[in-house]
Amino acid sequence: MSGSVLIAGLGPGSEALVTPEVRDALAQATDVVGYIPYVARVAERPGLTLHASDNRVEIDRSRHALEMASEGKRVVVVSSGDPGVFAMAAAVFEAVEAGPDHWRNLDIRVLPGITAMLAAAARAGAPLGHDFCAINLSDNLKPWGLIEKRLRLAAEADFAMAFYNPRSKSRPEGFEKTLDILKDACGDDRPVIFARAVSTPEEEIKVVPLSRCTPEMADMRTMVIVGSSTTRIIPRDGAPIIYTPRSVAP
Amino acid sequence: MSGSVLIAGLGPGSEALVTPEVRDALAQATDVVGYIPYVARVAERPGLTLHASDNRVEIDRSRHALEMASEGKRVVVVSSGDPGVFAMAAAVFEAVEAGPDHWRNLDIRVLPGITAMLAAAARAGAPLGHDFCAINLSDNLKPWGLIEKRLRLAAEADFAMAFYNPRSKSRPEGFEKTLDILKDACGDDRPVIFARAVSTPEEEIKVVPLSRCTPEMADMRTMVIVGSSTTRIIPRDGAPIIYTPRSVAP
Repeated sequence: MSGSVLIAGLGPGSEALVTPEVRDALAQATDVVGYIPYVARVAERPGLTLHASDNRVEIDRSRHALEMASEGKRVVVVSSGDPGVFAMAAAVFEAVEAGPDHWRNLDIRVLPGITAMLAAAARAGAPLGHDFCAINLSDNLKPWGLIEKRLRLAAEADFAMAFYNPRSKSRPEGFEKTLDILKDACGDDRPVIFARAVSTPEEEIKVVPLSRCTPEMADMRTMVIVGSSTTRIIPRDGAPIIYTPRSVAP
Repeated sequence: MSGSVLIAGLGPGSEALVTPEVRDALAQATDVVGYIPYVARVAERPGLTLHASDNRVEIDRSRHALEMASEGKRVVVVSSGDPGVFAMAAAVFEAVEAGPDHWRNLDIRVLPGITAMLAAAARAGAPLGHDFCAINLSDNLKPWGLIEKRLRLAAEADFAMAFYNPRSKSRPEGFEKTLDILKDACGDDRPVIFARAVSTPEEEIKVVPLSRCTPEMADMRTMVIVGSSTTRIIPRDGAPIIYTPRSVAP
């Protein structure tokens, strides 16, 4: 029996955003590993073992998946969103690189999913319709100075910006500093989108001018998108449409 | 009868990457509009009218979709990949903003899809596993100077970079200039991924060190991803794994 590790993106929450490829992988799996709330999205069935683990044990979880695949299991590692964007794929490959040589030649594949930034952008209009960047605001795994440098250069490049993990209870100050940097660096009062729990029953979308953004508008379930200098607001009944045009005048 | 415009992402090519949400929207549509090869992916059925149009008529196509929705039709505008990333969503909203007021209050929604950059990244490993940017290299709608500025700032920020529309017959020189800028600005020989026609039968993935990249390695069906300074290569039998670790050392 030949084992495999499929690293699958479950999308932001709604089952309507799970690809058939991921659905099929889950139907064929012998073992599913992942963070507790993501494993909870996988239906139990005979022949499938669910292995839910806590946050911040990504490397242990990855090693476990690779060990089971070495024994011939068909393992699916579940991630929310897209596994390649601030999620499990990099963790699995870190474990592969540091692990025994035979892990490298396992059947390891990444199955893409709808990442939070694109689901959030879709709800607001098309704020990422032109050049943009994606930055993880958590400084758990990188120095804060690098985040600050990237924010300033992204503002200078006039990218729209999507922020993952903007704020948590253990890091309340990072997003406050981020807002201060952007207010200083952007030079205009562009729209900021706070998209919480997109595609779930708790979904909440707010659009706030940068000058009026405050840190507590975001938590760990919030995706924050900041428009570029060319981003437009179309007022209408209900929530406005936010989009970044395809053109930039010379 | 109340009309709607759903702007739907068909993903990069494989039907296994089309979300159930998009599949349902197509099943309910009275009219589908889009660029010829994307409309060709939609099955004909009684009650559905397909309106295929050529490239570079995005605003005309958008106006047509909005007019039909005003008449009560359930219109789906199809895009490849994700409609919010260098695709039809921004074009539709440009038409809305410039159009009659009543278009603003139509039921207009964006249905996200798997964008080419994430499908390409998944095939190579996880090159976008840390902070990254996405840049459209076409200068049809923006000045070349802005592209060059963004490339230099993105290199300085040490983002991994994903390039859409790297090269076409009418713009053969832009990607050559891009490679020259990156060779100058990156200061190391990082891996570059050329991912052509991802998830289709013509799929081809190549990994080339930046110093050995040449312009003709890309065409309009190619997604180009350039690693950051921390991007790793795991050699193995067959294609190597390319990934960007989650951590950056202080």
